[in-house]
Amino acid sequence: MTDTTHTTGTARAAVLNAVDTPLQIRDDISVAAPKEGEVRVKMAASGVCHSDLSVQNGTIPLATPLVLGHEGAGVITEVGPGVTDRAVGDHVVLSFVPQCGECYFCTRDQGYLCEKGGAVSLGGLIDGTKRFSTPDGELGQMAYCGTFSNESIVPAISTVKIPDDVPLKVAALIGCGVLTGVGAAMNTANIRQGDAVAVIGCGGVGLNVIQGARIAGATTIIAIDMFDSKLEMAKEFGATEVVNAGDGDPVAKVMELTGGRGADVSFEVIGLGPTIEQAINMARSGGEVVLVGVPRLEVMLNLNAAFTFLYTAKTVKGCWYGSANVDRDVPKLIELYQKGELKLDELISREIDVADVNEAFEAMASGEVARSVIVHD
Amino acid sequence: MTDTTHTTGTARAAVLNAVDTPLQIRDDISVAAPKEGEVRVKMAASGVCHSDLSVQNGTIPLATPLVLGHEGAGVITEVGPGVTDRAVGDHVVLSFVPQCGECYFCTRDQGYLCEKGGAVSLGGLIDGTKRFSTPDGELGQMAYCGTFSNESIVPAISTVKIPDDVPLKVAALIGCGVLTGVGAAMNTANIRQGDAVAVIGCGGVGLNVIQGARIAGATTIIAIDMFDSKLEMAKEFGATEVVNAGDGDPVAKVMELTGGRGADVSFEVIGLGPTIEQAINMARSGGEVVLVGVPRLEVMLNLNAAFTFLYTAKTVKGCWYGSANVDRDVPKLIELYQKGELKLDELISREIDVADVNEAFEAMASGEVARSVIVHD
Repeated sequence: MTDTTHTTGTARAAVLNAVDTPLQIRDDISVAAPKEGEVRVKMAASGVCHSDLSVQNGTIPLATPLVLGHEGAGVITEVGPGVTDRAVGDHVVLSFVPQCGECYFCTRDQGYLCEKGGAVSLGGLIDGTKRFSTPDGELGQMAYCGTFSNESIVPAISTVKIPDDVPLKVAALIGCGVLTGVGAAMNTANIRQGDAVAVIGCGGVGLNVIQGARIAGATTIIAIDMFDSKLEMAKEFGATEVVNAGDGDPVAKVMELTGGRGADVSFEVIGLGPTIEQAINMARSGGEVVLVGVPRLEVMLNLNAAFTFLYTAKTVKGCWYGSANVDRDVPKLIELYQKGELKLDELISREIDVADVNEAFEAMASGEVARSVIVHD
Repeated sequence: MTDTTHTTGTARAAVLNAVDTPLQIRDDISVAAPKEGEVRVKMAASGVCHSDLSVQNGTIPLATPLVLGHEGAGVITEVGPGVTDRAVGDHVVLSFVPQCGECYFCTRDQGYLCEKGGAVSLGGLIDGTKRFSTPDGELGQMAYCGTFSNESIVPAISTVKIPDDVPLKVAALIGCGVLTGVGAAMNTANIRQGDAVAVIGCGGVGLNVIQGARIAGATTIIAIDMFDSKLEMAKEFGATEVVNAGDGDPVAKVMELTGGRGADVSFEVIGLGPTIEQAINMARSGGEVVLVGVPRLEVMLNLNAAFTFLYTAKTVKGCWYGSANVDRDVPKLIELYQKGELKLDELISREIDVADVNEAFEAMASGEVARSVIVHD
């Protein structure tokens, strides 16, 4: 006989009903039982990430309605059929890309492109079906996660076990912003001791690029943003120079700060055409450009072939999920956090109830905060 | 008293007087003495490379008049002041990029961007002055080389010593096409055992990309060109599949040949906007695109930011001179040649006198030959 306290639940979550509408807080969401390979997670906390906002405003096109949130941590309360390597009580970080460990990409240490992630845009789980429903119909969940809900069903391969003594609201941030930002610097880029790097965009991900660059050995770290408040925060995370892009051409400024040569590695962490082109132009010959920001699908880059690539021998890398291998990287990041080298507590600018998520979106859009974290009841 | 048999000479060379004019063969060229850090080379042979043609037609803008040729080998007949590590009688390959070993780039294993190469576009030597002259005035020399002359003054750091038993007409090819093509595959790209690669353009450099990919462990090598004659040659150098781009979209064909995934690494070895975009589109997610061909300065690429870079996590690399460290790579290539793994003799489709260089340009433009080699008297 099935234990119904485990196999169904009622969740409270923030729901996006349609692009460009505010999130709706609902507490009448039924959560179905986990299917083969899935687990139920009681969500402790969820970061409010710019990519959630990007789904709301249509930059990232996902099927609606759906429960947003893809950066979370919690405790497993039920395991579905066939799940042998996760157990009730496990503390887990959610990975917004499942990593099966078996596909073409996973076996090439490119788990961030795992083939199991192919159904994300449809809003359901890996098999295309949905676990959330309301009296009005089914709800999808962002990136197989849906961390704006206090309970969710997720693929077991979308969870990474962590030690019980890591605060879950801190762990939540690792799942997206930290893995992406630190990973961009430590995995995607090849930063060498003493390098000069430039980072365009100092939001939640950009700050992590900055601290990743610091840990990787960069000694000149130029932070670029339009908000002085973010630039102040960038300094706390390791920026050695700050440039307010409103004060003039940031490319010229980076050239000046690097002896006319350009940055060894430049990062774009916004996703706009003009700032991507700036990032390319501020990298030195033979340098790297790492594109982390999420552009709208219609953004086109107009690049001179000879000077962007051939004569300058530059490398331009798209960075998806910090090129992360989550089983390798999550423990490494936690170790860096516990040794005091990686700032995570400092990333949290406010803790909120899920009901306040629309205000958190507004604060993020206006550049005021690094990270709001939803603490679930 | 100066030994005039060494410090002056009269050379026979092919001269480009102005863009879009045929090369002029002159035998009344005076060759001045080597200055500090320079050596005199009796040139034995010179490859006729597509980049020579690109200077003639203005794709690569260099000051004229100048002696063309940048892919040569010969014997040192005089050393200038301050040269201690080269001696009369040394057999050398010319490097079309000097590598000083001391600058920012050389000390980062990026000697292909050596700062001493900065004056190349002016047509003289590193100090900006010229060594060739005729009754009509001074002549520059391409890339500090000028290998279409039977004698030249070059920077000592533009020469790489080779064993005396390597045929100089074979060694000549190493200096540009082989280092560039094999280097693109073995240095610039990260080819792994079993990878599928695609190569667009099967001229002298493209054939070397193909054999470099084979040596690096690629097991599917898709050669793409418009000429069946080049595709036949591509098979001899290691191509496992050939695609005539005239028969339909080569991107679709590469997708078909790679199980719908795309190439692990794609190379563009022509320098045209449309073929560069094809190379980007035929690379798989998480794959690499290596741009080797020399585009005209006005070629612009129009790339979708999200699908070229972010979501696909592709890397696009400009490849200059095969990312070569010549002191490391020339001996390695010679060893591969001597072991029979690197085909060099087979690259030479005809041996010509310098007087026949205009015909060799025509043959290259029409796609008929891999490499004409000028054998100097």
